[in-house]
Amino acid sequence: MSHDALLAELISIVGERYVVTAAPDTAAFLTDHRGRYTGEALAVVKPASTAEVSGVVKACAAAGVAIVPQGGNTGLCGAATPVGPRPSIVLRLDRMNRIRAVSAAEETITVEAGCILADIQAAAARDGLLFPLSLGAEGSCQIGGNIATNAGGIAVLRYGNMRQLVLGLEVVLADGTVLGGLRRLRKDNSGYDLKQLFVGAEGTLGIVTAATLKLFPAIRSRSIAMMQIAGVADALTLFAQARKTFGERISSFEIIGSSYMDFVLKYVTGTVMPFAQPAPWYLLLEVGDSRPDAPLAADMEAFLGEIFEAGLVSDAVIGSSLAQEEAIWKLRHGVTGEFKLAGKTMSHDTSVPVAEQPAFVERVEAAVLAAYPDANVMMVGHIGDGNIHVVVLFPHERFATAEAFEAASDDVDVIIDDIAMDLGGSITAEHGVGYTYRKRLARTKNPDELLLMRGIKQMLDPNGLMNPGKIFLPAEPA
Amino acid sequence: MSHDALLAELISIVGERYVVTAAPDTAAFLTDHRGRYTGEALAVVKPASTAEVSGVVKACAAAGVAIVPQGGNTGLCGAATPVGPRPSIVLRLDRMNRIRAVSAAEETITVEAGCILADIQAAAARDGLLFPLSLGAEGSCQIGGNIATNAGGIAVLRYGNMRQLVLGLEVVLADGTVLGGLRRLRKDNSGYDLKQLFVGAEGTLGIVTAATLKLFPAIRSRSIAMMQIAGVADALTLFAQARKTFGERISSFEIIGSSYMDFVLKYVTGTVMPFAQPAPWYLLLEVGDSRPDAPLAADMEAFLGEIFEAGLVSDAVIGSSLAQEEAIWKLRHGVTGEFKLAGKTMSHDTSVPVAEQPAFVERVEAAVLAAYPDANVMMVGHIGDGNIHVVVLFPHERFATAEAFEAASDDVDVIIDDIAMDLGGSITAEHGVGYTYRKRLARTKNPDELLLMRGIKQMLDPNGLMNPGKIFLPAEPA
Repeated sequence: MSHDALLAELISIVGERYVVTAAPDTAAFLTDHRGRYTGEALAVVKPASTAEVSGVVKACAAAGVAIVPQGGNTGLCGAATPVGPRPSIVLRLDRMNRIRAVSAAEETITVEAGCILADIQAAAARDGLLFPLSLGAEGSCQIGGNIATNAGGIAVLRYGNMRQLVLGLEVVLADGTVLGGLRRLRKDNSGYDLKQLFVGAEGTLGIVTAATLKLFPAIRSRSIAMMQIAGVADALTLFAQARKTFGERISSFEIIGSSYMDFVLKYVTGTVMPFAQPAPWYLLLEVGDSRPDAPLAADMEAFLGEIFEAGLVSDAVIGSSLAQEEAIWKLRHGVTGEFKLAGKTMSHDTSVPVAEQPAFVERVEAAVLAAYPDANVMMVGHIGDGNIHVVVLFPHERFATAEAFEAASDDVDVIIDDIAMDLGGSITAEHGVGYTYRKRLARTKNPDELLLMRGIKQMLDPNGLMNPGKIFLPAEPA
Repeated sequence: MSHDALLAELISIVGERYVVTAAPDTAAFLTDHRGRYTGEALAVVKPASTAEVSGVVKACAAAGVAIVPQGGNTGLCGAATPVGPRPSIVLRLDRMNRIRAVSAAEETITVEAGCILADIQAAAARDGLLFPLSLGAEGSCQIGGNIATNAGGIAVLRYGNMRQLVLGLEVVLADGTVLGGLRRLRKDNSGYDLKQLFVGAEGTLGIVTAATLKLFPAIRSRSIAMMQIAGVADALTLFAQARKTFGERISSFEIIGSSYMDFVLKYVTGTVMPFAQPAPWYLLLEVGDSRPDAPLAADMEAFLGEIFEAGLVSDAVIGSSLAQEEAIWKLRHGVTGEFKLAGKTMSHDTSVPVAEQPAFVERVEAAVLAAYPDANVMMVGHIGDGNIHVVVLFPHERFATAEAFEAASDDVDVIIDDIAMDLGGSITAEHGVGYTYRKRLARTKNPDELLLMRGIKQMLDPNGLMNPGKIFLPAEPA
């Protein structure tokens, strides 16, 4: 089928208005969120239903044209941008944004892939329930993308990552088959759990079109505190202590290094340092309870008193109003945009086993500074999950050419990845692999696992039409 | 390779003592827990390490001999018994029963596949933590089997099933490759999550040899109550009410039908009816908190007062001592052995969406009694998970021949399965498919899903050596 014939067929499936080919209208969908990659596409196609997605996939398969599914295009590693030589379309699910059902009795919600994460949170809240996935881009990212990337965020510690929140999944396979697994079951051992294949596969095995998700009792009382501590080992001691007081009520346990704090205070509008003096590290602890009358504020004060007595913190503040709570969270939340103001950054999304974080932090800082003494090594992350983001910042003018910067960036990747792997970690904890991390994946992943991954890809997408060029490097000739 | 040569090679790998071939010594491992199937095996082989498992698998692959992995042999659907014509060995993991590590800081435990579930619970408890998986056979089942069957039980409502408790998995593949995925990471998006393939695959894709599991804060205060209610719809109203009071503190929410209660009181030694009068249904609610001082007993009394006022319960008791709590649980716990005393039983492990349970119960009872007016339709299960076990009981002498019983049993399966599927359910919620349920799976499973399952099986086990005859019926000739 010629590309013109394909476009005509796509128009017959989704309507002329939803096959977008004019350059000004497609531009926003052809560049990734970080602005690192710009690709080409025959069209940006916007189906309105699962049947239309299936039709689009069948037409593309017949024409040998690849499909790049795209949610809110907020991903951080280029998984939703067309790359490489293969002609492709970008598939946007925006029009599939219905919340199909909320069941308070079942604590479930059934949503289409194009639903904005914040809209799902709001729909759950209207029924007195909680959809716990929460991350910086929640106002614009789509649940289909969250599922495809197995999104993480600030509530994984308590509720698990996206994978653990999925009960049922509807997926369109590479041949257009609709795999109808939209079940609302809490227990189902009738054969292999196929939905697991598509969670975190970044669109390389099929297209998520709808999902049934778990909900939880809403949080009706909470308390938030920020603490100043001397080091990461103390953070782990504190976490163990907090577990004793708060048990499963701990919702988030985040860490901010001093140079990251300095950066935020300098570049993020409206942030204020809540302490008189700086400290090497800052911890953010949020606890919550479904009971409106849980005495969390009193518990938090008692807890802070104890750890202060024990010499674990030098100072601490409790958010005693919604405004204060928001001000504390603002010091932690995503600032990808602001990095560009500060200089050239190299961002990482490493995880290591929780107890290995002190070693990780110490070794990374030493190794990066040994290689690049002028680097500003900033750290921030989800210490309850073993997921510390390392952001290495250089002045704008530090590298003469883009190539020099890329070479240094690759170099820093190797330094950090080797330490992570040595500690039993992962080079990508929550962002996924996408296009950006595939070389690093190929270098660090166990070859047996990589081989099995390729086998799965080959089985589900034998013609390589599902988001090609992502996760895997092109195969070596056999 | 001849079978004799294979046995010699197996002896060279694991030692003569651990290649068991004498009939009296193998008998216990060749019949399933329910005593429905007895198979044959060249030997029962007991490796002591992952390397030995890998060696055994390679030797068997070279000889074309199948491998039936077996944990505690407590499964309820014949998944661990050799069936069919293919020569096979039974692989027991008993000697691989080391708890390799417990980390309180990370809330993880790393165990070998042959560890008894109760031993893992005890090891976690020694460090003040909880491994929440809990089921009737916990004193003898092994964690490898729990993982291979994605075990459920009485704490799924709060902590998820086995799948959600696995952080890392070590698996020996069909060609003997050791897939070393024993990571302790809370977040890892470095490619497809391969471990998910092996959880719940019932040994048909590979052999689980070790796992890293999630732990939770220990429960330090709890309260247990049993209530008498009029119907299943009231149970759901009560559940919603309990959520408001207890939130995430609800650990178990179980239901017992009156005829099942009668059966337990008659046949299970030491059980006592805690109420003056019988009722149509009984609910068991357990709540727990990691704080030792949580006022759960007072909350439970207040809760029972409210629902009594609202006319939702006719009577209720609180377990006010450990002995009383155990007496309440005894009315609920597994009684597979006692069924044989009472008559001939047909047991089911259906799940439906939580809100569909009233319809499920009503329709099943009506349909089974319409076909078999003399049946005693007993129901018991995890109503918080939508998982009600239907046990259909007949007097011993009801069927003249084993064939007549089997025909009636198949008939009842179809009646119940059709209702379950109509309500969006699953024919096997937590027991798995094994040998017993494979015909029912083939009849009820979406053909596209079944095809994809076969594709995965073919990819990972092209020669069909991993637990053949399980999950799938023999393939139709193409």
